[in-house]
Amino acid sequence: MPSHMPQPSFVLVRPQMGENIGGAARAMWNFGLDRMRIVSPRDGWPSQKAVAMASGAGRLLDEAQLSGSVADALSDCTYVFATTARARDLTKPVMTPERAMQVAREKIAAGEKVAVMFGPERAGLENDDISKANAIINVPVNPEYASLNLAQCVLLTAYEWRRGAADVVPERVEMAKAEWASNLEVEKLADHYEQRLETAGFFFPEAKAESMKINLRNMWSRMTFTRADVQMLHGMMRQMVRWKERDD
Amino acid sequence: MPSHMPQPSFVLVRPQMGENIGGAARAMWNFGLDRMRIVSPRDGWPSQKAVAMASGAGRLLDEAQLSGSVADALSDCTYVFATTARARDLTKPVMTPERAMQVAREKIAAGEKVAVMFGPERAGLENDDISKANAIINVPVNPEYASLNLAQCVLLTAYEWRRGAADVVPERVEMAKAEWASNLEVEKLADHYEQRLETAGFFFPEAKAESMKINLRNMWSRMTFTRADVQMLHGMMRQMVRWKERDD
Repeated sequence: MPSHMPQPSFVLVRPQMGENIGGAARAMWNFGLDRMRIVSPRDGWPSQKAVAMASGAGRLLDEAQLSGSVADALSDCTYVFATTARARDLTKPVMTPERAMQVAREKIAAGEKVAVMFGPERAGLENDDISKANAIINVPVNPEYASLNLAQCVLLTAYEWRRGAADVVPERVEMAKAEWASNLEVEKLADHYEQRLETAGFFFPEAKAESMKINLRNMWSRMTFTRADVQMLHGMMRQMVRWKERDD
Repeated sequence: MPSHMPQPSFVLVRPQMGENIGGAARAMWNFGLDRMRIVSPRDGWPSQKAVAMASGAGRLLDEAQLSGSVADALSDCTYVFATTARARDLTKPVMTPERAMQVAREKIAAGEKVAVMFGPERAGLENDDISKANAIINVPVNPEYASLNLAQCVLLTAYEWRRGAADVVPERVEMAKAEWASNLEVEKLADHYEQRLETAGFFFPEAKAESMKINLRNMWSRMTFTRADVQMLHGMMRQMVRWKERDD
């Protein structure tokens, strides 16, 4: 069964090679999309080559809705995107994948049924297919070099769908087994180093001692230390002291 | 010669198959990136398989900087990202590709040299490699299914670099050979239809005629017509009149 998560359907229009249908299934499922529709696959259906390539995402192929025409595949959809690599002789909104998936999200939240069409490997969608779409998706590739394949185009569009999901956190800190050091712990570290360096005659000449200490404390507080870092730094200084005492 | 556009270097660490190095070159150049570095490719260098797969992006392979160690490959870099598929036992910032390329853009604008490391196909980067990085890039894949290959990971990261470029327009309207109709042209169209529909007895009963006309004018002005649309609509009405006149 497809997941219940509201999502756009991805419609592969007259795909040529089974491998690419399998690759598209993998690309979709990487980003949590599992509603595939297929219009008139060139080499027939089901496809063993598609299944072999889809490893782990084969369920999407089993559940794919097969149609004999683009019109049939889109019959229940209220808003349709067509992906194209080049400009066409048609007057339509042209969106980046990012913008398109924002629009898709808004429409789906409002109860609409949204589909995205992807054309055959060689030639892409025909103007007749595109005329059935409300808007065009155009990936902002290098104008000197556009060589995205079908699965890559599916991948980028699916990625943009997933990128807009609420649970994607732009930045976090992987904590492993670590915990951040508290201010107090960093303060104690600064004290430890200051005392030992004082003893070692580091703050010299006397006239500069105060500003040297301030610079050092600034440095400690600028860092984001874990407790393990702080313990290690204490240990380093203790070792230097031990080494000095042994040598004496 | 690599382009002069400021950009991050992409470092392939111990890549296994030449095809994947070629695929990575294509993925980079699709989004205008052309500074590749390669550390200890398993099957030697240069690679005919890489060249065959890179079609059109072979220049990146010719110009790639080959190194024997990660440390050598990164020696001139001031900020380094490591891409990983799974959490590691390391304390580091973990960013989405989007956030990471924002950071890269800021650092590069400030004159820093930024690199992004990609690990070998099977196992990914080792912890020893990752320890040389300032931050981790983690693609927000479906937690139930993560099967991005090397070229796809390169593709998504390169796409995020390009997506932030100033000249990427989120939405525009492809105008083909069309021009938008002016207000006056739409007004004349409304007049034409109103007159003909009046003659045809459409605005009935009399008590509702005024509000029917307002609704119709509202409809016309809500549309965004091209000049060609307006001409076609004029033609449709003229044809209906001709048809009526013939029939009489």
